[in-house]
Amino acid sequence: MERHVDQELKELNKDILKMGAFAEEAIYKSIEALKNRDKEMAKKIIENDDKIDELELLIDEKCIDLIARYQPMAKDLRFITTGMKLNNELERIADIAMDIAQRTLEIIDKPLLKPLIDIPKLSEIAQNMVKMAIDAFVRSDIQLAKKVLLSDPDADKLRNLIQKELVEDYMVKDGSTAPRAVQLLLIARFLERICDHATNIAEDVIYMVQAEVVRHHPEKLKDGK
Amino acid sequence: MERHVDQELKELNKDILKMGAFAEEAIYKSIEALKNRDKEMAKKIIENDDKIDELELLIDEKCIDLIARYQPMAKDLRFITTGMKLNNELERIADIAMDIAQRTLEIIDKPLLKPLIDIPKLSEIAQNMVKMAIDAFVRSDIQLAKKVLLSDPDADKLRNLIQKELVEDYMVKDGSTAPRAVQLLLIARFLERICDHATNIAEDVIYMVQAEVVRHHPEKLKDGK
Repeated sequence: MERHVDQELKELNKDILKMGAFAEEAIYKSIEALKNRDKEMAKKIIENDDKIDELELLIDEKCIDLIARYQPMAKDLRFITTGMKLNNELERIADIAMDIAQRTLEIIDKPLLKPLIDIPKLSEIAQNMVKMAIDAFVRSDIQLAKKVLLSDPDADKLRNLIQKELVEDYMVKDGSTAPRAVQLLLIARFLERICDHATNIAEDVIYMVQAEVVRHHPEKLKDGK
Repeated sequence: MERHVDQELKELNKDILKMGAFAEEAIYKSIEALKNRDKEMAKKIIENDDKIDELELLIDEKCIDLIARYQPMAKDLRFITTGMKLNNELERIADIAMDIAQRTLEIIDKPLLKPLIDIPKLSEIAQNMVKMAIDAFVRSDIQLAKKVLLSDPDADKLRNLIQKELVEDYMVKDGSTAPRAVQLLLIARFLERICDHATNIAEDVIYMVQAEVVRHHPEKLKDGK
């Protein structure tokens, strides 16, 4: 028989998925706006951020309310507190997409420094990591969460490559490129920070599932609590 | 009569203060290492980060354990969930101090680009905001939390000033300064991100106290829940 709390936990899952979809969309659109020099799209991302902030507060309230009403133990409690963390990470991701949109607006009226290839590639990695991390949470899938962790070094490498190229091949050779190159460098760093947030989510999921495993096998606990 | 839970909540307060002290120390030392070109200090900050990560996990576990054992309602529950958020913000702040130490190591063997004045100033603002934000939590002091929010625009302004100077007066005029200037620019951005985390903490404190006010005055609620 399904407990009433199960229904509400499913709702929480749905809310997190919705928050995740918003965050993914914001990343995607922020890089589209950069690629297509689309001022309206960049502005819309910035405007939309308020809605995402509101959804974050709403989910947060729901989680506290769930805990207060059901006083859930072990597994459910851990699921809810992990949900609160994810919610917060996703809001940060959307914030970073807004940062990207703001950097984009700074350079949108100037000619492109170079064809954008690596930045969209890094954005794809970031979106994919966020998507996998949320799926890992929703399915309590520790293997998928580990896949997210494995993607992070690729993102780091690509970010370093982009940074090195912008500094050495552009700024050093021709200082006048610096104002534009700095904005692209920051955008690459923002994308890599999104990957870090996806990594945080994946770690939280692993911790959620493993703590559960430990609770079911108390011999694995250090302090016997 | 003091409840047993009160004793444990006091312990939680102490843990958060300890975490806060670690984070503040990490910020301070990261900028000292930069100013004094102190390689050992920079390396130590990076090594110490593991300890801070461990403390974060420990506090997180304590919070979940507190909720599971006492099934606290309203005020206490909100204090604990806010504590979990703060704990997470403070760990991020320590992470950023580690980022600063890493950037510092990149430029430590090269001559200083310029005397460091504004970056230490920004670091002071950041440390002060973090300190005030933690105090605001420990004392549930909404006025102090609001003071933190009022400091953030100053940090933004100073960060923009530093960035503008590094780009326009250094990189554009002499491209060969770019590798060092980029690292300083990133350090300034890291400090400003610490201020953002302090702002998040302050907002969480305001929300914690105000939600409490609302719970005591249900007529203020929108949906009557």
